[in-house]
Amino acid sequence: MQQTATDSVGDITRYMRALGESARQASAALRRIDSGRKNAALDAIVERIEAARPALAKANQRDLENGRARGLSEALLDRLALTPARIDAMIAGVRQVASLPDPVGEIDGLRYQPSGIQVGQMRVPLGVIGIIYESRPNVTIEAASLCLKSGNACILRGGSEAAATNAAIAECIRAGLEDAAVPEAAVQIVATTDRAAVGELITMPEFVDVIVPRGGKSLIARIASEATVPVIKHLDGVCHVYLDAQADLDKAVAIADNAKTQRYSPCNTMETLLVHVDIAAVALPRIASIYRDKGVEIRGCDRTRGIIADALPATEADWAAEYLAPIIAIRVVDDFDQAVEHIGRYGSQHTDAIVTENVTMARRFLTEVDSSSVIVNASTRFADGFEFGLGAEIGISTNKLHARGPVGLEGLTTRKYVVFGDGHVRR
Amino acid sequence: MQQTATDSVGDITRYMRALGESARQASAALRRIDSGRKNAALDAIVERIEAARPALAKANQRDLENGRARGLSEALLDRLALTPARIDAMIAGVRQVASLPDPVGEIDGLRYQPSGIQVGQMRVPLGVIGIIYESRPNVTIEAASLCLKSGNACILRGGSEAAATNAAIAECIRAGLEDAAVPEAAVQIVATTDRAAVGELITMPEFVDVIVPRGGKSLIARIASEATVPVIKHLDGVCHVYLDAQADLDKAVAIADNAKTQRYSPCNTMETLLVHVDIAAVALPRIASIYRDKGVEIRGCDRTRGIIADALPATEADWAAEYLAPIIAIRVVDDFDQAVEHIGRYGSQHTDAIVTENVTMARRFLTEVDSSSVIVNASTRFADGFEFGLGAEIGISTNKLHARGPVGLEGLTTRKYVVFGDGHVRR
Repeated sequence: MQQTATDSVGDITRYMRALGESARQASAALRRIDSGRKNAALDAIVERIEAARPALAKANQRDLENGRARGLSEALLDRLALTPARIDAMIAGVRQVASLPDPVGEIDGLRYQPSGIQVGQMRVPLGVIGIIYESRPNVTIEAASLCLKSGNACILRGGSEAAATNAAIAECIRAGLEDAAVPEAAVQIVATTDRAAVGELITMPEFVDVIVPRGGKSLIARIASEATVPVIKHLDGVCHVYLDAQADLDKAVAIADNAKTQRYSPCNTMETLLVHVDIAAVALPRIASIYRDKGVEIRGCDRTRGIIADALPATEADWAAEYLAPIIAIRVVDDFDQAVEHIGRYGSQHTDAIVTENVTMARRFLTEVDSSSVIVNASTRFADGFEFGLGAEIGISTNKLHARGPVGLEGLTTRKYVVFGDGHVRR
Repeated sequence: MQQTATDSVGDITRYMRALGESARQASAALRRIDSGRKNAALDAIVERIEAARPALAKANQRDLENGRARGLSEALLDRLALTPARIDAMIAGVRQVASLPDPVGEIDGLRYQPSGIQVGQMRVPLGVIGIIYESRPNVTIEAASLCLKSGNACILRGGSEAAATNAAIAECIRAGLEDAAVPEAAVQIVATTDRAAVGELITMPEFVDVIVPRGGKSLIARIASEATVPVIKHLDGVCHVYLDAQADLDKAVAIADNAKTQRYSPCNTMETLLVHVDIAAVALPRIASIYRDKGVEIRGCDRTRGIIADALPATEADWAAEYLAPIIAIRVVDDFDQAVEHIGRYGSQHTDAIVTENVTMARRFLTEVDSSSVIVNASTRFADGFEFGLGAEIGISTNKLHARGPVGLEGLTTRKYVVFGDGHVRR
C-alpha cells in the first residue's frame, strides 16, 4: 500500500512502474496463499473499517468540503458521501465476498488421454488487475476484496474528488492485510491524482494483466482506445424487450413496466421496446398508460403513434440511444426476424429479452440474439452479478473474449492446463 | 467465397470491409445452422477435395514453380508442397473435426436464483475469426473446418507463395458449402497478396471478433502490436523441465531426453533444463551422454560444467533463448524456489514440467508456475491439442484472457448468460 500523500510521487512513469513491479511480486505471493488466509485478511479489513468509522467520516468530510468549494453538483456530492449506512453496506459487501467459494485451484475435466497422461484445467488468478473508477469511494473496498479473494493483486485508481476518503479506506485495507500477514502490495492505491498515472497503468502489460474501468462512458471509451492491456468493459447498455405475437399479455405489461421504470439509470434498463404487430393494438395502450402515469416520455415509430396518440415521433437516433432517463423508444415490428435484426443493428450486445409463450420463438431468441445476457420472460433488470448468483460483481462485460455479462470472482480468474504423468514421454 | 483472382481487388480498404460485412452476415446465419448441417458441409468439402485431387496438384505445381523461380529455400518449398499423402492428411483432419462434438449451444450451470429466475451460461460462437498464416496450404482447410464446426465465419489470409494452391482449396470449400446450403461467405479467402489487406483485417473490430495468426514469431509480433482486434497467440515457447531433488532418476532421464530431442522445432520443446543440486551429479552425466549421442549442444551454468566437462558456458541470453534446435541450456539450482523463480523470470508462460516423486513439490509446482500448461512427470511435448484430447488445434495461446494453452473448438467459442423466467420482474 502506498502512502496516502497525494501529489508528491515525483516521476509518474517511474512511480507507476514501481507499483507494477510490487504488484507482480505480490501476485506471485498470492498464488501461494490459501482461501483461509484470504478470508482472514477480509475479516481483518472489516474490523479495521469498523474501528476507523470516525477517521473515515472525517476524511470524507474533507472531500465533501473540497468538492463543494470546487462547485461539484449535488448529484456528484451525493455519490461521494460516505454515510454510516454506506459504511455498513461496504462491510456487508466484504463479508459477502469472504463467504463466497474460492474459485482458485478448481480442476475441471481431469481425464486420461490415450497416451496415458491425465489432462485437466485448473482455475488460476489472472495476476494483476488495474481498476480505474470515478467518485464512489465504496468501489475501493469492493474491488479490493474481489481481487484479493480471487488471488489477484490490484492497483486501484480512484477519482480525485474522493482522494482523502480513498486514502482512509486504503489505510484500513493496508492494516487488515498486515494483520493477516498478506503482502501489503496485494492492494495498492495510486497516490497521485495526475491523469498521466492512468495512461501509464493501461500501457504496462508486463505488470498489469487486465484493466477494469468503472465509470461513465467517456472514461471507458478513452481507456479502451488507449490501453495496450486487455480491458473488461461495456460501453453502452441499449437493452431491448421484444413482445412476441404469442406473449402473455400480463407478463408483457409487467416486464415492459419493470424493465423501463424500476430504475432509469442502470445499464440493464430497457431503452427500446419492440412489439409484434399482432399484439400491438392490445398491449401498447396498457403499457402506455403505465408509462404516462410514471412520467415516461414515449417516442414511437409511425405504427406506434397510430396506437399511442400522444407519442412523439422516434428518429433514427432514438433506436441507438441509451437514455438512462424516463424516455422510451417503441417500435412495432412485422415479425420475429425484424425484431432480431433490429436488436443486431442497434443493440449493444448487453441484455435483451423476449416475452413469449411459444417455445420455438424462445429457443430462436436465445440462439439468434448475440448479446451477453439473453432473457426469456423476465425483466432485463435482472442482468446483474447478484441476481445471477455470482455473489458480487466487479462490472459487466460485452467483450467476446473471456467473461461476458456480469463479471464476478470467476471472471477475475483464468484456466491453465494441468497434466499428470508417471514418466510419460511422447512417441 | 471470393473469386480466385489474385490482385484485381481494387481499393484494399473497401475490399476488406466488404469481406467483413459478408462475414458478419454469414456469422448470423451460422448461429441458426445446426450440427447436422455443419457436418454435412464438412463431408461435402471432403468429397470436393477428393474430386479435385488433379486440380489441387496442378495448382500446387504452379506455386512450386513460381517458388523455385523466386528462389525459395528447399525448406520453404517442402512446406509448400501438397503431396497426395498431405491431401490424405487434410481429408482425415476434416473428418476428425466433423466427428467432434459440437460445442455450440451447450448450457452450463442452469440454476434457480432466489428471485425465481433460472440462470445459466450458453456456449456460442465468437462470430468472425480472421486467420493469418504462412506457406503451409493445409492451414486453409484446417482453419476453415474448425471455424465452421464452431459456428464461426472466417476470413483466411494465406501466404503469397501458396496463392494458387489456396485458391484451389478455397474452391473445394466454396463448392462444399454450396452443396450443403451453407452461406458461402462462411469461409472467405482474401484474394489479394497485398500486405495492406492484413493491416485492414486486424483493425476492423466491427467485422472481426478475433485474429489467430499462425506462423513465425516476427509475423505474430507485428500482428499483435498493430491489431485492434484481440489476438489469440503465443510468441515464444521457452519451456522448462525441472528435475526435483526427489525425482525418479529413470523418469528424469526419459523426460529430459524426450522433451528436448523428440523434435527440435516445436514450441513445446524444452529449451532449458533445471536440475536440483542434490541430484545433479547423478542425473546429469546420464542425460549428457544421451544428448552427446544425439548431437545436442549443451550450454551450462558453472555447476553444470563442473559435472559435464564438455558443456559450453551458458550466458544470460541462453536462459531466455528459444533455440528450436539441438541446443540445450542447463542450470543447477539450489532448491525448488530457485527453479520456480527462474521459470518466472525467463520463461514464456507456455509449458513447464517438474519431475518429482514428492506430492508436495508437485502441488506447489502446479500452483506457483503461472504457465498455460503445467506438467508433472511427463514431457513438455504433450502440450498439444490432440494430446490434450481437444481433437484438433487451431493454435496455442499464452494469453491470460480467454483460452490458454492449446486452443481447440471450445477456444473458438464464448459463453453468454441465458435467463428463463415466467414473467419475473425485479423488486
